[in-house]
Amino acid sequence: MIIGKEVKMENTITYKPIGIIQTSFKKSDGMPIQSKFSQDKGKALIPIEYLEAVKGLEEFSHIILLYHFHESKEPKFLVKPFLSTKELGLFAIRAPNRPNPIGISIVRLLEIKTKNDSIELIFTGADMLDQTPLLDIKPYNSDFDSYPEAKNGWYENRDIDKTVADNRFSKQ
Amino acid sequence: MIIGKEVKMENTITYKPIGIIQTSFKKSDGMPIQSKFSQDKGKALIPIEYLEAVKGLEEFSHIILLYHFHESKEPKFLVKPFLSTKELGLFAIRAPNRPNPIGISIVRLLEIKTKNDSIELIFTGADMLDQTPLLDIKPYNSDFDSYPEAKNGWYENRDIDKTVADNRFSKQ
Repeated sequence: MIIGKEVKMENTITYKPIGIIQTSFKKSDGMPIQSKFSQDKGKALIPIEYLEAVKGLEEFSHIILLYHFHESKEPKFLVKPFLSTKELGLFAIRAPNRPNPIGISIVRLLEIKTKNDSIELIFTGADMLDQTPLLDIKPYNSDFDSYPEAKNGWYENRDIDKTVADNRFSKQ
Repeated sequence: MIIGKEVKMENTITYKPIGIIQTSFKKSDGMPIQSKFSQDKGKALIPIEYLEAVKGLEEFSHIILLYHFHESKEPKFLVKPFLSTKELGLFAIRAPNRPNPIGISIVRLLEIKTKNDSIELIFTGADMLDQTPLLDIKPYNSDFDSYPEAKNGWYENRDIDKTVADNRFSKQ
């Protein structure tokens, strides 16, 4: 990929899942479109080797899960999202079909359970498919991450809390 | 990687940068530790091929940049972050050294400029190194992403807005 004359980007970046997310959603049809409007429980499972890596996380009420949209399709650059009748650019929407299909969900952490061979992060706000590969966990910090005054573009005045997903963004 | 008896994860996930981020920070020393406390300008450069993909983004005041911490080192599971004298788990902090070194910054979008061969997203809130590989752009939505009431764990009562980075998390 070349941007302008001087910027070349050919490199690929390789990640390995750190765990998986278990939810009750076997398919995208009917799934909440954002974690904020989901009361569904989910579980992030990571290997017991990461036990030290979660130290201190239990003190946070919210955590950020970064994951791979494993059922996403090739992206189209103009898309009609769930909440709009107009086509919008893929970088102006939150749908899973993206050049790099990385998902973000801010979920409410309920409990961290340590098992023999795994650590379970139990949360509410599940809005991802079952078996989603987990890439990263970050603590949510209201001082860094909250912008209640933000201007929400085309979302303004949409009925976001009553909308659920259909299958338009998944492989099947 | 195996979690418990039934969950196996061997797959790697490969992404390709969609662009780069230009900032004035050539090294991490002295850099703002979070975009919220940065007044510095930055520029996300993406190829002109993505012109349709940014349609509608100009109506948002804030955008989420996902990027690769290209100067990060092998992670340690217990880390002393900038704002703490105690060691904490890497998933309880926001530092760049992570199993999958993906960074998130919520930045204030000032302008989108269309050039001959590239699109420039000009923003304030730069807290990443110059030449950072860009992975994704998402619209920030205060209805989805703001949790002003969140409990911020070990960050509570820390002097976060006066702290800048040193070089503890970078290669050099």
